Amino acid sequence: MTELTKIAITGQHYIDGQWIGDANDFASFDPQANQPLAWMFANASTTDIDLAAQAAAQAFTQYRRTTAEQRAEFLETIALEIEAEIEAITLVANAESGLPMPRLQGETGRTCGQLRLFANNLRNPLHHGIIDTANPDRTPLPKPDTRLSVLPLGPVAVFGASNFPLAFSTAGGDTASALAAGCPVIVKGHPAHAATSELVTRAIAKAISTCNMPKGVFSLVQGRTAEVSTQLVTHKVIQAVGFTGSLKVGRILADACAARQQPIPFYGELGSTNPQFLLSDILTEQAETLAQNQVASMMMGHGQFCTSPGVVVAVKSDALTRYLAAMAESLADQAANAMLTPGIAAVYHEQVQALIDNPKVSLIAQGRSSEAAHQTRPSAVKVQAAAYLEEPQLQQEIFGPCAIVVECQNIEEMLQVANALEGQLTATIHGIEQELNQHADLIDSVSYRVGRIIFNQMPTGVEVCHSMMHGGPYPASTDVRTTSVGSEAISRFQRPICYQNMPQSILPAELKDDHPKVNKF
Amino acid sequence: MTELTKIAITGQHYIDGQWIGDANDFASFDPQANQPLAWMFANASTTDIDLAAQAAAQAFTQYRRTTAEQRAEFLETIALEIEAEIEAITLVANAESGLPMPRLQGETGRTCGQLRLFANNLRNPLHHGIIDTANPDRTPLPKPDTRLSVLPLGPVAVFGASNFPLAFSTAGGDTASALAAGCPVIVKGHPAHAATSELVTRAIAKAISTCNMPKGVFSLVQGRTAEVSTQLVTHKVIQAVGFTGSLKVGRILADACAARQQPIPFYGELGSTNPQFLLSDILTEQAETLAQNQVASMMMGHGQFCTSPGVVVAVKSDALTRYLAAMAESLADQAANAMLTPGIAAVYHEQVQALIDNPKVSLIAQGRSSEAAHQTRPSAVKVQAAAYLEEPQLQQEIFGPCAIVVECQNIEEMLQVANALEGQLTATIHGIEQELNQHADLIDSVSYRVGRIIFNQMPTGVEVCHSMMHGGPYPASTDVRTTSVGSEAISRFQRPICYQNMPQSILPAELKDDHPKVNKF
Repeated sequence: MTELTKIAITGQHYIDGQWIGDANDFASFDPQANQPLAWMFANASTTDIDLAAQAAAQAFTQYRRTTAEQRAEFLETIALEIEAEIEAITLVANAESGLPMPRLQGETGRTCGQLRLFANNLRNPLHHGIIDTANPDRTPLPKPDTRLSVLPLGPVAVFGASNFPLAFSTAGGDTASALAAGCPVIVKGHPAHAATSELVTRAIAKAISTCNMPKGVFSLVQGRTAEVSTQLVTHKVIQAVGFTGSLKVGRILADACAARQQPIPFYGELGSTNPQFLLSDILTEQAETLAQNQVASMMMGHGQFCTSPGVVVAVKSDALTRYLAAMAESLADQAANAMLTPGIAAVYHEQVQALIDNPKVSLIAQGRSSEAAHQTRPSAVKVQAAAYLEEPQLQQEIFGPCAIVVECQNIEEMLQVANALEGQLTATIHGIEQELNQHADLIDSVSYRVGRIIFNQMPTGVEVCHSMMHGGPYPASTDVRTTSVGSEAISRFQRPICYQNMPQSILPAELKDDHPKVNKF
Repeated sequence: MTELTKIAITGQHYIDGQWIGDANDFASFDPQANQPLAWMFANASTTDIDLAAQAAAQAFTQYRRTTAEQRAEFLETIALEIEAEIEAITLVANAESGLPMPRLQGETGRTCGQLRLFANNLRNPLHHGIIDTANPDRTPLPKPDTRLSVLPLGPVAVFGASNFPLAFSTAGGDTASALAAGCPVIVKGHPAHAATSELVTRAIAKAISTCNMPKGVFSLVQGRTAEVSTQLVTHKVIQAVGFTGSLKVGRILADACAARQQPIPFYGELGSTNPQFLLSDILTEQAETLAQNQVASMMMGHGQFCTSPGVVVAVKSDALTRYLAAMAESLADQAANAMLTPGIAAVYHEQVQALIDNPKVSLIAQGRSSEAAHQTRPSAVKVQAAAYLEEPQLQQEIFGPCAIVVECQNIEEMLQVANALEGQLTATIHGIEQELNQHADLIDSVSYRVGRIIFNQMPTGVEVCHSMMHGGPYPASTDVRTTSVGSEAISRFQRPICYQNMPQSILPAELKDDHPKVNKF
């Protein structure tokens, strides 16, 4: 069995095929033990970032000409190389994130599954070229031959998320979809799992070599300062950014991207409260089950999922009283736990305390007491809808195992809560089919406030598939037109191009007359 | 026959089904006669803009629930109502823009053709829903039923272009695609054709009434001040902006959209030099024809097309000398003409004079002298590639009938010019098929700098079809991922939504199991 202390970590950046940098700027941290790990890392300089960017620009001129099959093999090779090191990767990720081993093994599977999904999509694309055939006899003007396909945008900067050190990080969905699209990637390693990023980068480096890809197609820059992030997204070479993280940091980087001489797309997934609407018939039928499902969902990853259900909306009733009792009972039994970083734990502490101190808010229950000061307790509180609607701070996401139950006086007030929602990744409506049919206005309102509307299921767990939309109206995402999970994520890093009157001999394969899937008009 | 002076223009805004406002803020202008017209217009106040926005928000809750067929009929009715008033509309547009009647009649046809294209696309969509079917037996977790469709974004602000008072204005491509998507539209009337906007708005108002659409689904606010534009795009209700105009104004509005509390997409088409690359074999074969085609293309609309060919790139040769001689001969015969507005004419004068005064630039030819001081002369100049590459101001668009021929010492220098290009709507490569096959690097480089790459055709004339891409890398467009012309323009005003575990009875029609075109996985 691999021992953690025997895993060598350089702490350096990986730029243009080389490990470089002096690894003495910041340390990795074990949030469960609440103490630093032995590994030290470099903080990228302006020069490091420029080297990575220039290497990506250079690589782009070759990588954009690779075939879909070559990129598919590259993605599959990355998956194989990650699987070959799964023991070390999960051990290091466990030390740096505190997430349990089975969860990290599952997350590795998901990461490799995503890479293979995009490989499969490259071989069997969802979308095909479009041809409008010429008509030289049209009057008053001849109709030209025009054909529509896509090109990759160029080098992409990716910022991993603290809560998914594998699936939303170094070789996560953003990287996989950008590489699939034909874009080189520069990952800014998340400082909360810098060693994990290094190990995953080694797997990618092996795949680059095996598949004979240009060296600059992937770089990792480590860093803990805000300057590293800002310099990366404002570098002239970078053409798009994938980001998962906080609203505060996401907005700073989004603004920096918009203010560039050439503005670029910033795809930020910035958080969500994932409201749960409980209609009255189902609540009467299943109050206890719904409460238990709510607690189980909000406890996943100690509440540190972007799809954690942080808000419950229901009309005052005896059934709601039963729900609250069952919720209190179930929650009281939940353990305190460390969070991903001391910073996240501190903010959670502060936000929950502010809720409890708010005279309009009543405590439903908290989980078991902390074994240590750095651990946080699960919490649930209740507030009247009128107060919730009045106080915007009650509507803000609390990242962690906390839920706020919003008690409405009637269904009209529930609709008011829906109408007042900020953009969310998801919301769920719980109801028996008959009552769902009676609440078209509520379903319509909720639809326009979310990227994914769910019926009678909890939101945690994001399926990686063709029909997923993991995004939503601002501030859930900075670009509601896109998803960061699933097949359509690739379209964030492509753009259309029209070829007019191009000879068959030089047309891209997907646009030639004899391509079996091309759409002809 | 209709007489211009008998056409009554209120000069007011059309907001929520009412004509309102005091029409005494600015006058319409006849650029050919170089004098004001009799019509006066109101400049929208903050209150006017808020009224239009609130009406659009109100209308959205109904309009978003219309069927595709209902929206198709609405678009077709708008087209019919425009055609019913074609005589008055073209007469007024001719007075306000100075564009000739046949051109405006053709542009009316194009405008109505666009409306019917989107109606047709609503009945026969290019894209269909996606279903990933549930698998309750999957391990370790059951697979949910997820389905992907699209929703309209919400109220859209549209800014018409001075150079297409019909097809890129009040009922132009932006309005047609936004209405097709299910979004209410507020048009900020272009002050250079405010009366034309009013007449087209009347046609839309009739269609709203005939089709029983919510009144706020379309509003027109007139205005000449920068505040009107900024207040409109920063209004909380507005969810996207369509704009065609100058880089300067476009960038101001794009920045305002990005700085909103909720940033929104700004689709700005901001200009292009549309370079023409002449390869040596075709230049030798067809120097004279190529030169004549260049002059004919740059003279269309007196050079005031966004796809006007403003740059010609060729390697020094005897054939290029022949080309320049033919160009000079053809150009010298072209008439001076008024431009769309005195402001556009003044900028053209200034930019052409700066070129002529530049010691690195030599004059090829100018068209015939102006009959009047407000008219401008077509112009062509030549510069060495080295100088062109050194001086960024030589690379800027000159809006009007002016072209700069960039003489390269060799094909490598031509590739350098391609590599240095800013983003363009189009570029054309002229070459016989054999030499096109030999210049893969040039074709690759040009592809990444344009939205549409053309072979052996001039760029003027944008086909309205499924495969069109009228956009390009910044600054040609503020969003390279989108087109403002053709079927895909609708996607600018839609966004994906995932429905998870939604009962069949309430699923949107396009996602039900029995929909004939849905994609099932």
